[in-house]
Amino acid sequence: MALIVQKFGGTSVGSLERIQHVADKVIKAREKGHQVVVVVSAMHGETDRLIKLANALTSEPNPREYDMLLATGEQVSMALLAMALNAKNCPARSYTGLQIGIHTDDFHTKARILNVDTTILLKELAEGYVIVVAGFQGVNTRGDITTLGRGGSDTTGVALAAALKAEECQIYTDVEGVYTTDPRVIKEAMLLSHISFEEMLELSSLGAKVLQMRSVEIAAHHNMPIRVLSTFTEGEGTLVTFEDKIMQKRLVSGIAFSHEEAIISIFGVPNRAGIEGEILGMVSDANIEIDMIAQNATGNSATDFTFTVQRKDFKNTMSIIEKISKKLGAASIKSNAQVAKLSLVGLGMRSHAGVASKMFKALGEADINILMITTSEIKISVVIDEKMLERGARAVHEAFELDKKLLENESAEIEAGNL
Amino acid sequence: MALIVQKFGGTSVGSLERIQHVADKVIKAREKGHQVVVVVSAMHGETDRLIKLANALTSEPNPREYDMLLATGEQVSMALLAMALNAKNCPARSYTGLQIGIHTDDFHTKARILNVDTTILLKELAEGYVIVVAGFQGVNTRGDITTLGRGGSDTTGVALAAALKAEECQIYTDVEGVYTTDPRVIKEAMLLSHISFEEMLELSSLGAKVLQMRSVEIAAHHNMPIRVLSTFTEGEGTLVTFEDKIMQKRLVSGIAFSHEEAIISIFGVPNRAGIEGEILGMVSDANIEIDMIAQNATGNSATDFTFTVQRKDFKNTMSIIEKISKKLGAASIKSNAQVAKLSLVGLGMRSHAGVASKMFKALGEADINILMITTSEIKISVVIDEKMLERGARAVHEAFELDKKLLENESAEIEAGNL
Repeated sequence: MALIVQKFGGTSVGSLERIQHVADKVIKAREKGHQVVVVVSAMHGETDRLIKLANALTSEPNPREYDMLLATGEQVSMALLAMALNAKNCPARSYTGLQIGIHTDDFHTKARILNVDTTILLKELAEGYVIVVAGFQGVNTRGDITTLGRGGSDTTGVALAAALKAEECQIYTDVEGVYTTDPRVIKEAMLLSHISFEEMLELSSLGAKVLQMRSVEIAAHHNMPIRVLSTFTEGEGTLVTFEDKIMQKRLVSGIAFSHEEAIISIFGVPNRAGIEGEILGMVSDANIEIDMIAQNATGNSATDFTFTVQRKDFKNTMSIIEKISKKLGAASIKSNAQVAKLSLVGLGMRSHAGVASKMFKALGEADINILMITTSEIKISVVIDEKMLERGARAVHEAFELDKKLLENESAEIEAGNL
Repeated sequence: MALIVQKFGGTSVGSLERIQHVADKVIKAREKGHQVVVVVSAMHGETDRLIKLANALTSEPNPREYDMLLATGEQVSMALLAMALNAKNCPARSYTGLQIGIHTDDFHTKARILNVDTTILLKELAEGYVIVVAGFQGVNTRGDITTLGRGGSDTTGVALAAALKAEECQIYTDVEGVYTTDPRVIKEAMLLSHISFEEMLELSSLGAKVLQMRSVEIAAHHNMPIRVLSTFTEGEGTLVTFEDKIMQKRLVSGIAFSHEEAIISIFGVPNRAGIEGEILGMVSDANIEIDMIAQNATGNSATDFTFTVQRKDFKNTMSIIEKISKKLGAASIKSNAQVAKLSLVGLGMRSHAGVASKMFKALGEADINILMITTSEIKISVVIDEKMLERGARAVHEAFELDKKLLENESAEIEAGNL
């Protein structure tokens, strides 16, 4: 008998039929002898409905009241799920974040979980209840309801699993797990049976948004295995764990990409200390998020400086950059708002040379121009023309044989190893 | 400067425009120098929407989860109102019943308020906030959310007012106050400037449902004046207070009536001790509510027994009564499912003879047959043919001159008295 936490997203509880289906899934886990804590999001569309109400009322909703409003979404779905469970003779009780004691900091609309009180949870689990907890919300030291921001229910799930020392945190979603790349775009994408936290973090932040960043951080910190799997189909999904628990290592795990990017280059900027902070500080001050940054020092006195922002921020960014470059006496500015980012992620990069060049070669052979490159320990990202994104992703996917049935062979190897 | 509690019902907060309007009303009271605690119901239709969800999911929703679900309705409207107030530069904070500490008993879906913690309320009022509290809900000793049943927001308002020793509890509704009779039926109905708790209780229970019974009981117990007034029009409404605070006494205050009644008489029942309990016990055991009861002992050995039930319960009641009367050897049964109840309420009846006969005379002159009569200290009720209800109400209304502009004269008298 194990204790597991199951988190169901808004699509999974999007209708009464689906809530019944989720109840069946919970009961199945219980029949296997598990103790189950369930975390639910608001029913699909409900949070948007509430946000619309607030925005129709005032352009700047009071953040405390905004959280108070939004928190009702999860309260509705958790009560309905607990009702469905009880109706199926499975004793269940639902709790809000405030009732359980999911303590957060004070930052309304984007609070962070500080700690979770397990008193009620452990007591009711021992009494044989399934506990249904509202995702996405907590309570601050004042006793006010806070919310964790979009995708916060994943974080609730992982935080509860960590606090309860659960065997694993199962994140049910509308995809079957983590793929080598986006299966909606590249049909050859393969389901990964496992992935490391590090790779998952890189993939999450790159647009392959299966899990919320913060939830992976918490899981990694507490060494809590996360299993991503589908509410609607059977399957083992993808297990996200620490690198050392993964027995078979792949060179690369996946390809992530994001549309709607814009790239801006400033040429001939005086190459003095602090110049980067000066330029990017002005952009950040306008509340514009900078994604990739690359710099090429062309000589002693001047440097070229390139960065990307989301396309929606392009116009604002350009008007700031034009002012700065005039002030700094930069030689020229070049920009392109029709670009996309393609990233290759894999733990194997650390120890294997030639991954980058193999990627660039594949793109070159597909006749794709690289506009910008940045690298980290386990990730290589390139900016390319947006129209080339799918072709590029496919080329790199093939080059690293991510479309080959490696997983089955690997599984065979593990089993052999276990004997 | 006074502390007042304002309660707004579901129709008053039924749309974002109306919530803005309520915010303006609250701000107006605040500008007069009052401290204001606001109690809100769920937006019109929201509670029904939630009930439908629960009933579509299961025929017997778990009561704890049912309350958890329904409580979100008020949380939405209170957050929206607090947002609207803040947007109009009126500092406001909303609280659920659980957060404030509105302690109730354990009876889910129809809990009773036991006591109200005023710690947060007093602290935040002192800091200059308007406090918006969710009506209809509280928390039991387990920490579970409870709801008070339909109309429970009135009770929340009065309980908060009593706990805070407020100057008065204003119940905003979609009518201008309490009338001498139903103005939708009898257009000559007059708005009462005041009424006693006792009369209000009788009127409430008789179908003139302006306030929830339990709220009047609490108000009477704590001697808390209630003012019933309209959200949508200006006016002083009707003040509900203790008899001794009302300077001008009317003979009668109003006429209440209720449709959809059914009357059943059993003739020739053996007149022995406990026979009434035997008959009515069977009906009660079938969960049927008995309203009026009258008995005429026609002789030593036999008695006639008459009572009323709601029309929806008529068929069930008849099949029970037919069985009992056979068993008891009653002479006959007579019934009529097309009747209505008409009641005259007034404190003056206590001291003035002739009220009953004046009422019966008025009905007789209108050619209306009385099928049954019951009386209490301040109320006389008759059962008549339903088709005669409006004519009967009008006849009694005129007979007691409730349609005359008595109120203005009375006001003049009071003012004279005060000089």
